[in-house]
Amino acid sequence: MTRVFNFSAGPAALPEPVLRQAAEEMLDWHGAGCGVMEMSHRGKEFTSIVERAEADFRALLAIPDEYRVLFLQGGATQQFAQIPMNLLVGGSADYLVTGTWSKKAYSEAKHLAAALGGAARLAGSTEADGFARLLRADELDLDPNARYLHLCTNETIHGVELRESSQLPPTDAPLVADMSSHILSRPVDVRRYGLIYAGAQKNIGPSGLVIVIVREDLLGRAAPVTPTIMDYRVMADNGSMLNTPATYAIYIAGLVFQWLRAQGGLAAVEANAIAKAQLLYGCLDSSAFYDNRVERSSRSRMNIPFLLRDDSLDEAFLAGAKEAGLTQLKGHKSVGGMRASLYNAMPLAGVQALVDYMRDFSARNG
Amino acid sequence: MTRVFNFSAGPAALPEPVLRQAAEEMLDWHGAGCGVMEMSHRGKEFTSIVERAEADFRALLAIPDEYRVLFLQGGATQQFAQIPMNLLVGGSADYLVTGTWSKKAYSEAKHLAAALGGAARLAGSTEADGFARLLRADELDLDPNARYLHLCTNETIHGVELRESSQLPPTDAPLVADMSSHILSRPVDVRRYGLIYAGAQKNIGPSGLVIVIVREDLLGRAAPVTPTIMDYRVMADNGSMLNTPATYAIYIAGLVFQWLRAQGGLAAVEANAIAKAQLLYGCLDSSAFYDNRVERSSRSRMNIPFLLRDDSLDEAFLAGAKEAGLTQLKGHKSVGGMRASLYNAMPLAGVQALVDYMRDFSARNG
Repeated sequence: MTRVFNFSAGPAALPEPVLRQAAEEMLDWHGAGCGVMEMSHRGKEFTSIVERAEADFRALLAIPDEYRVLFLQGGATQQFAQIPMNLLVGGSADYLVTGTWSKKAYSEAKHLAAALGGAARLAGSTEADGFARLLRADELDLDPNARYLHLCTNETIHGVELRESSQLPPTDAPLVADMSSHILSRPVDVRRYGLIYAGAQKNIGPSGLVIVIVREDLLGRAAPVTPTIMDYRVMADNGSMLNTPATYAIYIAGLVFQWLRAQGGLAAVEANAIAKAQLLYGCLDSSAFYDNRVERSSRSRMNIPFLLRDDSLDEAFLAGAKEAGLTQLKGHKSVGGMRASLYNAMPLAGVQALVDYMRDFSARNG
Repeated sequence: MTRVFNFSAGPAALPEPVLRQAAEEMLDWHGAGCGVMEMSHRGKEFTSIVERAEADFRALLAIPDEYRVLFLQGGATQQFAQIPMNLLVGGSADYLVTGTWSKKAYSEAKHLAAALGGAARLAGSTEADGFARLLRADELDLDPNARYLHLCTNETIHGVELRESSQLPPTDAPLVADMSSHILSRPVDVRRYGLIYAGAQKNIGPSGLVIVIVREDLLGRAAPVTPTIMDYRVMADNGSMLNTPATYAIYIAGLVFQWLRAQGGLAAVEANAIAKAQLLYGCLDSSAFYDNRVERSSRSRMNIPFLLRDDSLDEAFLAGAKEAGLTQLKGHKSVGGMRASLYNAMPLAGVQALVDYMRDFSARNG
């Protein structure tokens, strides 16, 4: 068996120790005589798994007591609908559009707003600039009465990341943030947000799980047309188990949380993320062969799109990379070029191998 | 490692060869250099996995071409909402209530009907009889103009199963059937149904996946308030991949389908199910110590609830069973007593071990 360095944007590489443990426990979890996939979600074994997963997740992000953690299904895309269904309640919500994902969230809110007796408002967009940067303060058009302000703090496709609390928009409306592709890569001041959500398939675990962190005062506001399973209040009251949750995905996520804590928590994780991103951006910035078009202060540590200035070499670049054990580097079809996703499970050695390959490729083809 | 005989109603026992293969492939699927959990859902590896899973599922159930197969999230409970959102369209739907699960489906349809400009109608219920039997033809109150008629063909908690097409209600409305807890346990005449759905965590695979089989003419009718991700038409047009599906659950389900085909398909599977059910019912019927209260013609092969006539022995029964390697036999809290779920992954030897234990326990305590 040879493991590659897998730069997939998601579902993405998972820590090898997590996968090894999962494989070992597949047929018999801790002497239970069955695997985690085969356990009743209401039994004491799985209860211990989900409780530990939540406790570790709370510890990693220092989540205050007045926030509930929900383990849900349907990914971030389902949240695009679930958020207005729960929080719009006949009012208006502001949306910042800084890339494909926040644009999708806005589009879904618009799709549902009329039926919910509310409105979704565009409060700022960088689309005209190709989503190559964050919004500037003077570009914001904020509604002081917005029910919430939605933003995506890391755009997976465009490689734009909001990293500092100082970059958050100045509003009293609850901030609702899609953190799918950079959650757990750095400490977050959770109290700055009303609701945070993240699809699991990047830094958390397998696809099919989405985690929602929601402040308690935002529960209980769902529109009448909200499916019961999509009512945050109901899910919070039922410990995310109105019905059977995605048990195996929660188990894997729990193993990832344990692994992150063993790394030293998010301060240590962030230091690694910085080192990995600097290594790759350093390579890009020192080369006339490659190009990254994202404004420097908006650059993502997690998802780094780049172009070969001569795109006729794209296929040769990807083929050579694959031969060198570096996979999933093709950029999203909407932007072309390349993309390296440097999630937590990607070791520095993987980024070093990528940079070595890139320098070698440019020397041979430059 | 000692594997128990796990009678859980769900998440439930999976075939041991499936789990062994999954463990072996956890870090490296077929030389891809990464596991299935780490693969892009749009890459050629995962595409081959999902395409084979669908082909095997179609072959097992002989699904006609005019039906689409969708791999969705949120379990059957999300379908309880998704069905009226897609199919009610300002009309009225009939619901048959024959146990906890069909009652929940009806309740959710009532919850949403007004907001959808429609109505959900009770077309028959056995609740007054403790859900101990199927509905009789003379108890049905069918609306000839119903948009659809919903029923649950196997009630997991009450152990009532509709096994013959002749037991289906006489209606021209499309039948919408929750088959969660007995799908793939017998051949089904799919053409009798407009839509079939099944949560995976019984006979299919891990929780977090629900499969919908829907006739094409029922697509494209969703109410405006339907979240995009819950619109069957959109999901059918996107091959269940509007967003990232539950990739690992689909992979495991695919391995289960391969295993079922290797058993000889659903005719062979059904023969096994009959043999297992006869063994346990035979034990119950020949004993004054145990009791099953379901009418004989309505008995489920998959979920067999039973009582100890002296319920003060319940705890001793469960403790002894666990010691004998027979687990998850406690009945649902709403009905008490015991329940043995005999899904496809439960071997005849497991049922024999249970029957041996039950005879021994009754001899010692009778």
